[in-house]
Amino acid sequence: MIKPRTPPGVMELLPPDQIAFQRMLDTIRRNFERFGFLPVETPVMELSEVLLTKSGGETERQVYFVQSTGALEKAAQSGGEGTPEMALRFDLTVPLARYVAEHEHDLAFPFRRYQMQRVYRGERAQRGRFREFYQCDIDVIGKDALSVRFDAELPAVIFAVFSELNIGAFTIQLNNRKLMRGFFEQQGVAEPELQALVLREVDKLDKRGADYVRETLVGEGFGLSAEAVANILAFVEVRSTSHDDALARLDALGDGNDALRDGVSELREVLELIRALGVPEANYALNFSIARGLDYYTGTVYETTLNDYPGIGSICSGGRYDDLASHYSKSRLPGVGISIGLTRLFWQLREAGIIDTAQSTVQVLVTQMDAAHLPHCLAIASELRHGGLNTEVVMESSKLARQFKYADRAGIRFVVVLGEDELAKGTVTVKDLRREDQFEVARGELARALRVELEQSRAMR
Amino acid sequence: MIKPRTPPGVMELLPPDQIAFQRMLDTIRRNFERFGFLPVETPVMELSEVLLTKSGGETERQVYFVQSTGALEKAAQSGGEGTPEMALRFDLTVPLARYVAEHEHDLAFPFRRYQMQRVYRGERAQRGRFREFYQCDIDVIGKDALSVRFDAELPAVIFAVFSELNIGAFTIQLNNRKLMRGFFEQQGVAEPELQALVLREVDKLDKRGADYVRETLVGEGFGLSAEAVANILAFVEVRSTSHDDALARLDALGDGNDALRDGVSELREVLELIRALGVPEANYALNFSIARGLDYYTGTVYETTLNDYPGIGSICSGGRYDDLASHYSKSRLPGVGISIGLTRLFWQLREAGIIDTAQSTVQVLVTQMDAAHLPHCLAIASELRHGGLNTEVVMESSKLARQFKYADRAGIRFVVVLGEDELAKGTVTVKDLRREDQFEVARGELARALRVELEQSRAMR
Repeated sequence: MIKPRTPPGVMELLPPDQIAFQRMLDTIRRNFERFGFLPVETPVMELSEVLLTKSGGETERQVYFVQSTGALEKAAQSGGEGTPEMALRFDLTVPLARYVAEHEHDLAFPFRRYQMQRVYRGERAQRGRFREFYQCDIDVIGKDALSVRFDAELPAVIFAVFSELNIGAFTIQLNNRKLMRGFFEQQGVAEPELQALVLREVDKLDKRGADYVRETLVGEGFGLSAEAVANILAFVEVRSTSHDDALARLDALGDGNDALRDGVSELREVLELIRALGVPEANYALNFSIARGLDYYTGTVYETTLNDYPGIGSICSGGRYDDLASHYSKSRLPGVGISIGLTRLFWQLREAGIIDTAQSTVQVLVTQMDAAHLPHCLAIASELRHGGLNTEVVMESSKLARQFKYADRAGIRFVVVLGEDELAKGTVTVKDLRREDQFEVARGELARALRVELEQSRAMR
Repeated sequence: MIKPRTPPGVMELLPPDQIAFQRMLDTIRRNFERFGFLPVETPVMELSEVLLTKSGGETERQVYFVQSTGALEKAAQSGGEGTPEMALRFDLTVPLARYVAEHEHDLAFPFRRYQMQRVYRGERAQRGRFREFYQCDIDVIGKDALSVRFDAELPAVIFAVFSELNIGAFTIQLNNRKLMRGFFEQQGVAEPELQALVLREVDKLDKRGADYVRETLVGEGFGLSAEAVANILAFVEVRSTSHDDALARLDALGDGNDALRDGVSELREVLELIRALGVPEANYALNFSIARGLDYYTGTVYETTLNDYPGIGSICSGGRYDDLASHYSKSRLPGVGISIGLTRLFWQLREAGIIDTAQSTVQVLVTQMDAAHLPHCLAIASELRHGGLNTEVVMESSKLARQFKYADRAGIRFVVVLGEDELAKGTVTVKDLRREDQFEVARGELARALRVELEQSRAMR
């Protein structure tokens, strides 16, 4: 006998949780499609040579390699040297780059794609860190150029997704890398590497406090002027409180240099179009502390936080980049994208108690009072299924009370009972376990009646 | 520059195909849920020790092992010996067994689950054979016992799935391993191993012809009587032509032995309940040649074939087994299940030209005649999205003819045009590219009008 268990660091769910997870996936997908994004799926494994274009990095340390038995044997014979031929994807961005470059001539640009698949990272096993997790990504990829207008669409998608996910108030926080770069240049921090180091210190504000950061930046290592440091600390504290406040914050930055002007003008356009897309101003704000991956993003950057759960951190991040696939294609392919790490988010929401797992996918249980009635029960189930209701039939006889208990525990809302009386009258009795109500209905009316009940509850939410 | 390419033996789709594929997945899932099956997903990798309980088999030869960089380095130091800790699942049955055994105390039995994920096999690369492919499985697992009645539900699911997939007429073919065993015993072929060998010869009927098979079976190796061989060849030719014919075929088998009687009685009950579930008799038939995996299935077995494409082979197969998880649990867990290998099926249907890739997920394109109108276009798109329509907006200016051409090529049905006239009147012009029709509608009525159009076309199909 072998002990059945999953590998460490993966999230496997029981059906009630899996149903809740699947609902979130469906909501995300529905909204991605609402905004005109097209589905892409890529193989879980990529050729190592293709996947690991930048060798030796932290990424490669976390990669899982894949080998068939034959390849393993060959490797063992040759002393186990060499990189295996294939590896599991560690994100959806590299596969997207490979996909777009490989199929460049078959795609229409701007290419809008969504991809919702699992990715793999050999992280150190710890609570809330997963080695296998879902990413839900959308990107718009242009050929040669891509208007900044697209940067405004993504916040509208984020707004639609998280409104419908119904996990509490949230804020989409915006910044722009050009604006940041211009501002730092203004403060005498011109080199990108130095900017990165300064930002790393600024990131310690929450943990170490303003005094510590101020002292470090004016200290020997950095040698910035007290004024520059004060300006920087004031800058990264900026959070706009309304649409007009956001515009005023941009005005306040002044004319500065080219980079600053570009960044300000991009953010202005993005803000204008976000509003045109109907995103309420309570749901977006400037946040000049947001930097994201400094070596990757080049314009607009996004983070999204739950107002009531700041500790969860960003639940949806992304931004604008200059060139998606420079490793694979000579074409310049600028893009803008966002990603939701759904496995971790689900885990965090469940820990915080904001996941509703009470509702089954099964809407109706047809009970069985008498084995001789089973053909009738099956026919009723058929009618319900034709009527669009997810229906389970009790196939093996047991006490009716036990059947009700099962429905209750499983989160099935409607229980259909068919006794001699009902059979004679051509009716069924329905118990609504949610409303703790019961009614009798003609068999021919059953599916319609339950659909009406379900639609009413949906409308009431 | 690295050449962007996928590993050999995987199927990667362009968006129009991916949309068609995703529609099939959705249809399958919707029908699995209609019948009360609950979703399960398992990690792509399992511990090798758990996955490979029967070592040294053909399966293990095809397994892909997974190793982190650290594990690879360790293996190289120790001379590359030993089985890696993890491997990719090669089907969904072993993960189901592991899942049910691991979570036995948290599941309600009979446990009805569906699982639709990719599996991995290191097959020899050849046309139409895939190393990564989707399986769409449902199983019902009992604890200690599971009524044969469940065996009748699966054909009803198969019927619902393939009716809605709309890929042509199909027949669900039924047999029963007990009935086969009893019949072969009656013909003097008692040992299971011998039955397997005889069946292997019988399988050559199509390729080698009846004379060859007859000679082999009466020949030295087998030494069966001419009468037994004639009976066997007549038996495996049995295909029922209607429900009543199926019952008559069962009657004609006579009383025989225990196994035969059990098999006949199970098939009778299954046939009765399939009919009660409303499956038309044109869609199911007895086929006494169907054996499936002889060491696994123990009762009802299923295959499903497309009437007009017999060459595609079985598109959905499965059956009843005695014990799902004997390697992982002391409990007896009998079950019945079916599986659809969707990647291969999709490939075959596409080769046969029966995949419709003409329809995008995007339903409406809002064109842009003048960049100054973009905020209006975005607001209209918002209204459409709120109204449930998947909508893309042209964000960058281009000639209107080009925008129409894009919609046409992309399979987007409705194109919305907003000119000065329309803006002044508060209307938009809609071109219906499918019906080659156009109409003007008040902006407030737009979403409703398009929804009506879409519902009408859906009803007409």
